[in-house]
Amino acid sequence: MSGRIPESAVRRLSLYLRMLRELDQGGVELVSSGQLAERSGATAAQVRKDLSHFGSFGKRGRGYSVRPLSEALEHILGLSHTWKVGLVGVGKIGSALLGYRDLRARGFDVVAAFDVDEAKIGRRVFGVTVSPLADLDRIVSELKVEIGIVATPPAVALDVAQALGRAGVRAILNFAPTELQADNVPVRTVDIVLELEGLSYLLAQGARETAIGAEGG
Amino acid sequence: MSGRIPESAVRRLSLYLRMLRELDQGGVELVSSGQLAERSGATAAQVRKDLSHFGSFGKRGRGYSVRPLSEALEHILGLSHTWKVGLVGVGKIGSALLGYRDLRARGFDVVAAFDVDEAKIGRRVFGVTVSPLADLDRIVSELKVEIGIVATPPAVALDVAQALGRAGVRAILNFAPTELQADNVPVRTVDIVLELEGLSYLLAQGARETAIGAEGG
Repeated sequence: MSGRIPESAVRRLSLYLRMLRELDQGGVELVSSGQLAERSGATAAQVRKDLSHFGSFGKRGRGYSVRPLSEALEHILGLSHTWKVGLVGVGKIGSALLGYRDLRARGFDVVAAFDVDEAKIGRRVFGVTVSPLADLDRIVSELKVEIGIVATPPAVALDVAQALGRAGVRAILNFAPTELQADNVPVRTVDIVLELEGLSYLLAQGARETAIGAEGG
Repeated sequence: MSGRIPESAVRRLSLYLRMLRELDQGGVELVSSGQLAERSGATAAQVRKDLSHFGSFGKRGRGYSVRPLSEALEHILGLSHTWKVGLVGVGKIGSALLGYRDLRARGFDVVAAFDVDEAKIGRRVFGVTVSPLADLDRIVSELKVEIGIVATPPAVALDVAQALGRAGVRAILNFAPTELQADNVPVRTVDIVLELEGLSYLLAQGARETAIGAEGG
């Protein structure tokens, strides 16, 4: 029906949904494409185009009905369902993710955690018991874990991603600072250093342009 | 000289640099565009195009010299300089970032941390003393903090980003799940829920296509 839309448009759908949920909680019933655009870094025309991929939600001259559009976006983004998540690597970032309440609130329930460190195995971290990595296959299968989070050191991240894929996980979110591939399983990487380097590039370029501008003037 | 290149190309430069540093540590002196492509999800032609923006690094038929190319990319990405970073919000994610050794190793030195929680103020977290948010202006200015990290709850993230901008920070990395704008200061957002929703979308679409395929067959 809708086909594939670009990753950037999917990101905007998430941002529209976030705003719609807030409006709905505040009792607001109608929203314009201009209002949706404001908070998502898009134009009103882009909002209308993004939403048109999925059917006809707007009422000419009145805007969008908040509740039905919110429910439609939840359905499109697969959020009518609560996803079962398994996390590998209970270090600093992994522990912080286990304690991140927003995940469950937004439909991502971390039901299992794994580590190789004997000192961590058996401990409960924010309500989730840490299991040995050797039990990955069995636990992923028993608990029907659908999404894996890799929060290990980079040197073992690829092996862990592949083990998650073999165990039956259907998608992977990777926090290790390395590019991962797992057979037939989509992977998204959150790479903090890469984001900082992107900012560093902008600052360095800005400084060079200023220097060149000053030379030229 | 080089002008602005797209964000996606800057990301690839970071990935090339990562690989070049590893090769350099391993004593490798030459690398082909094909090898650089392999680990960064690019094609060899794209590697050559990305690098051609910044001058002529390759030797026809021999590949790129690892050390000089690595140093050139460090310069382009602004990493010859160590950036001073200030972090606001010493919660779970903020604490994990303070403990993230890779940041300093990669040229980002977290020199200050701020919180409003009296219980946290004055404590040292992974070697950084937590200061009251009220001292932001003075400390950013005294320590010459250049990059701010926002790791606060979303409701206060915009105020914090604007305060960082006013205090003189030149770029912001935002971990709060909300879109931020600060006057004249570039902002990058790391939004974990958004990444998971992107995966959720792919899985939901996949399931629908499979269902439609099964109906059609």
